[in-house]
Amino acid sequence: MIVILKPNPNPSQLSHLKTWLESKNVSIHESVGDSHIILGLVGDTSKLDMDLISAIDIVEDVKRVQEPYKNANRKFHEEDTVIKVGNTQIGGGTLTVMAGPCSVENEEQMLSVARSVKAAGATILRGGAFKPRTSPYAFQGLGKEGIDLLKLARKETGLPIITEIMEISQLPLFDDVDIIQVGTRNMQNFNLLRELGRQEKPVMIKRGMSATYEEWLMSAEYVMASGNENVILCERGIRTFESFTRNTLDIAAIPVLKKLSHFPVIIDPSHATGKSALVPNLAMAAVAGGADGVMIEVHNDPSKAWCDGPQSLNPEAFEKMNKKLIALHSFMKTMED
Amino acid sequence: MIVILKPNPNPSQLSHLKTWLESKNVSIHESVGDSHIILGLVGDTSKLDMDLISAIDIVEDVKRVQEPYKNANRKFHEEDTVIKVGNTQIGGGTLTVMAGPCSVENEEQMLSVARSVKAAGATILRGGAFKPRTSPYAFQGLGKEGIDLLKLARKETGLPIITEIMEISQLPLFDDVDIIQVGTRNMQNFNLLRELGRQEKPVMIKRGMSATYEEWLMSAEYVMASGNENVILCERGIRTFESFTRNTLDIAAIPVLKKLSHFPVIIDPSHATGKSALVPNLAMAAVAGGADGVMIEVHNDPSKAWCDGPQSLNPEAFEKMNKKLIALHSFMKTMED
Amino acid sequence: MIVILKPNPNPSQLSHLKTWLESKNVSIHESVGDSHIILGLVGDTSKLDMDLISAIDIVEDVKRVQEPYKNANRKFHEEDTVIKVGNTQIGGGTLTVMAGPCSVENEEQMLSVARSVKAAGATILRGGAFKPRTSPYAFQGLGKEGIDLLKLARKETGLPIITEIMEISQLPLFDDVDIIQVGTRNMQNFNLLRELGRQEKPVMIKRGMSATYEEWLMSAEYVMASGNENVILCERGIRTFESFTRNTLDIAAIPVLKKLSHFPVIIDPSHATGKSALVPNLAMAAVAGGADGVMIEVHNDPSKAWCDGPQSLNPEAFEKMNKKLIALHSFMKTMED
Amino acid sequence: MIVILKPNPNPSQLSHLKTWLESKNVSIHESVGDSHIILGLVGDTSKLDMDLISAIDIVEDVKRVQEPYKNANRKFHEEDTVIKVGNTQIGGGTLTVMAGPCSVENEEQMLSVARSVKAAGATILRGGAFKPRTSPYAFQGLGKEGIDLLKLARKETGLPIITEIMEISQLPLFDDVDIIQVGTRNMQNFNLLRELGRQEKPVMIKRGMSATYEEWLMSAEYVMASGNENVILCERGIRTFESFTRNTLDIAAIPVLKKLSHFPVIIDPSHATGKSALVPNLAMAAVAGGADGVMIEVHNDPSKAWCDGPQSLNPEAFEKMNKKLIALHSFMKTMED
Repeated sequence: MIVILKPNPNPSQLSHLKTWLESKNVSIHESVGDSHIILGLVGDTSKLDMDLISAIDIVEDVKRVQEPYKNANRKFHEEDTVIKVGNTQIGGGTLTVMAGPCSVENEEQMLSVARSVKAAGATILRGGAFKPRTSPYAFQGLGKEGIDLLKLARKETGLPIITEIMEISQLPLFDDVDIIQVGTRNMQNFNLLRELGRQEKPVMIKRGMSATYEEWLMSAEYVMASGNENVILCERGIRTFESFTRNTLDIAAIPVLKKLSHFPVIIDPSHATGKSALVPNLAMAAVAGGADGVMIEVHNDPSKAWCDGPQSLNPEAFEKMNKKLIALHSFMKTMED
Repeated sequence: MIVILKPNPNPSQLSHLKTWLESKNVSIHESVGDSHIILGLVGDTSKLDMDLISAIDIVEDVKRVQEPYKNANRKFHEEDTVIKVGNTQIGGGTLTVMAGPCSVENEEQMLSVARSVKAAGATILRGGAFKPRTSPYAFQGLGKEGIDLLKLARKETGLPIITEIMEISQLPLFDDVDIIQVGTRNMQNFNLLRELGRQEKPVMIKRGMSATYEEWLMSAEYVMASGNENVILCERGIRTFESFTRNTLDIAAIPVLKKLSHFPVIIDPSHATGKSALVPNLAMAAVAGGADGVMIEVHNDPSKAWCDGPQSLNPEAFEKMNKKLIALHSFMKTMED
Repeated sequence: MIVILKPNPNPSQLSHLKTWLESKNVSIHESVGDSHIILGLVGDTSKLDMDLISAIDIVEDVKRVQEPYKNANRKFHEEDTVIKVGNTQIGGGTLTVMAGPCSVENEEQMLSVARSVKAAGATILRGGAFKPRTSPYAFQGLGKEGIDLLKLARKETGLPIITEIMEISQLPLFDDVDIIQVGTRNMQNFNLLRELGRQEKPVMIKRGMSATYEEWLMSAEYVMASGNENVILCERGIRTFESFTRNTLDIAAIPVLKKLSHFPVIIDPSHATGKSALVPNLAMAAVAGGADGVMIEVHNDPSKAWCDGPQSLNPEAFEKMNKKLIALHSFMKTMED
Repeated sequence: MIVILKPNPNPSQLSHLKTWLESKNVSIHESVGDSHIILGLVGDTSKLDMDLISAIDIVEDVKRVQEPYKNANRKFHEEDTVIKVGNTQIGGGTLTVMAGPCSVENEEQMLSVARSVKAAGATILRGGAFKPRTSPYAFQGLGKEGIDLLKLARKETGLPIITEIMEISQLPLFDDVDIIQVGTRNMQNFNLLRELGRQEKPVMIKRGMSATYEEWLMSAEYVMASGNENVILCERGIRTFESFTRNTLDIAAIPVLKKLSHFPVIIDPSHATGKSALVPNLAMAAVAGGADGVMIEVHNDPSKAWCDGPQSLNPEAFEKMNKKLIALHSFMKTMED
């Protein structure tokens, strides 16, 4: 950590600051420049509160040298995290394709979509039982019944299931779910993250709409700090000024997260664009860009979907795309160093 | 609602669509243009799902004519909402000044700050007991003990208290709090909003970091739809590309919200900027711009605050600023139409 | 175009508005709803000024049904634009790889980089002679001498050259350049665009840092409206709240622009990220996502580059990446429908 | 400047780097930490190229301690810049009100608006002769004739005039203009800025749509570096995700720019919001927030304005607002420390 002092700091305040810093078990390297004194702090600075130091009168700025996350950090955890669910795994060179409807609507729809995506090569079944909806008047999901239908579809197809949790009190209903999804609006629901860290199921954290990489990794850190190492990250588009697409897919998140952390990275082009016609190009880009997988909305009849119809592929379009994704993934393997 | 069709729609699909729309009790006005057919839907369109219609093959675009919120809408609720707490009120021409520390730290700090802000003319006491912190390793608030200290400070000063809730299970602890704050990260925690709508205490909803006005008003709609009309909105800066300030205060939110809705509007320049030196100018701007009040972080010793020190004013700076705010507010009244 | 009136419009104003609209040769379809009257305007609405109509007292909102660009519009220009330069072409199924240094520095550097990128399979040589630099104290490019060195490198390697113009007065120096680049800061330099439309060389327009797709296509429209149909679009990252990367590459621009317009689309991962380690993943994503090509900064010694060193690949890294890009492009062709 | 090295740097590269830095006349303070070596560079670092240093293999990050602008910097230019034009001044405690139509349309319109705003207390007359329009088919301004009409209006009213330049070649037409405006799309037209630095007229630089404070001040630095010290800054809203208003007015720019630099700061609420109904609140906020003035669009008949009608006030609304602005400005003076 580097502390930059304002010009001509009061000497007694400076001496006070140095004593205090040393009491925190860091050692101080002082550089006296023409206009500024700079303190380089060496040692375990993770317990130092940057905000607190910034607030001190004689301090102009504080800059961090090390990342504020540890468990999530590639530097301290070199090998890739690989997560096993059912007969498949996420990360470690496998192509993960999570597919299914935005909302679980009824048995017929759920089973129909589940069979289609299984046949087309999906590896994990998605479906929303609890739906965060902007409007209190919109369909809010089937809740427990939705989870039961997902389990039924799992029984039919053998695909592990992933579904979204919206609050801690719902956790018992997720006992028999394979992966718990934390949605974009809950990425900084810290109590929920902490609680999900206290159980063992894999947790897939979607990026908050305007979350930085660092904030996102800090949310993963919350889960890991409570004891659960099974974290997956899912980029689903960030909010920008461009409104033609629902969000802006940040494709650079793939190599960035691979460099900074050790988690599997999934790309969700359906939510990122909000337009099904754009999904195949972005899914291909994701696979070639190094993602561990994609999450795709598929509906047996998108024009009758209870939510997010415009971004859902129908089973035929999904099958056509998924064949290409699988072929591309195999081809990419032949080019690995 | 207006439905714009793709060029040359399939006639049987079009006829099907019209029948379906009529079954929803809306009537249809069709305009046939050179390149597009446009359907104007008339009647109660609030039950129609825009997303669903957008997903239909022959539909190019759907545009809403009316806002998706009703209870929150100025059009259906002309008079300003005025909220009474303790001996003061929020809205209705009163200048509200919520002041206090970011975190409640201990009895001495809390009472000292409370006495100072009371003496300087604050009308409501703020203080965080549950703190949403980006890092799992940072101080997370005193919890119940913090709320007890706030109540003690209320007893001492007579100031009503406002503090932030982070999840539904904490609600019983808020029984004796005057105003419940929903933080920026929980603005779309829909379950929490619904629950807060089922009780009677006023709820202050801070704007999400990248929430549009419409999304923010939909969150207010969640609270109102469950029965609680006592909503206050607080603009605390939005996330933009500019990183010199912590966020970008959207001052236009004041007249926009006053036009679209009927709620009191509070401005929080402390979180908006993250720099105490910028707070007074923005607080003055807020009052002159028509806000019903401001929320200001004050700490007896900002350089020792356990969180957000750099944005806190000390009691002297607060007093100096608040005198000006009060004078400005009185002056603005002399210029009302 | 759709005009939504405020509730209960003044009848004489409404009649006045309708007469005026009819005088513009559009016909009007009126839908009378419970709360709003909606006017659907049919005919050539491209000459109507939305802003002017929005300003009329009785008008609540105006919505466009058709895009404001015509020459750039896929709807009126179905076939892909293919641009021939030297022995290569841009668009039409060819993989374009523009490579070279950020700045032309001297003969040795320019020839060395040119030979390397040619050997590694680049199809076009890039290099900056006029450099838009944030600081007046930074290196501003070699100007005419830089263009001469580019021509020398073209003579050596046979690669066509692309370089950036900064203002109209420089145009004579671009007489013998193959493609003229308009940089992100000049995307809305309308006088420059108009002038570039009056000559015949291909023009590559980089997206403005915060330009929408529509604004970008309107800039292409400026060039085409003056008579030059040879336009290429280059996505180079947009400005968002994320600052870990220099910009955020909007990968969805590829399918969006392919759908809305007919231009070749080039992706520039070097400027999009500002970090050379991220470039290969994004270049691969671009090719798999359907881009017509990429633009890559290559420097013989990135740590001595006069500008943008951190985002430049060295020749070895470029060669390694480009082999993969070429193989991927061939593979993608095998999967075309 | 601080250079943070990657863990375990190659010793010969490190020694090489240090020798090279010392050859640039900076001295080096080295801090050896557990995981990183940090070099503090002391001396005149303004000639060091951060990008170049960042590109060096063993360097992880480079952080600047001092701002990259000098002439624009409050630290080296303590007193406020005050600009005299005609009988008025900008800065130095005067309230500047620039008012007039978006576009100069004809003599009658220009004189009518000029007389109204003069009568209502405006101090400077604005009007666009060259108009940057997104569409090549929209009205592009009257050009030279527009400037002549502005001069005529100045003769009538005595008000100094400000109008926008779009490219260097237009400069001779601005010979008799009082203030030259650089629009948001030209904020980083560096050639134009440099040229404007070589003449003596005051230059008002509007903030680029997505420009940081630092980039904006660097544009002012371009003008000053060429010899012209008469710079005014105008905040006109930045581009964000919120689309209800045309842009988002960054009110914090006022105290930030006052702290970092010494220029007068003008706020343009008309372009910031695009909605005339929001203009008065934001203009009041600007004056109370410490701005030196405002720039307001006024049109004798906004519904017939040739551009930007929806954001123009009519003369009555302007007069009503301006009375309040003037009264507020006087009141604010009574509260100065």
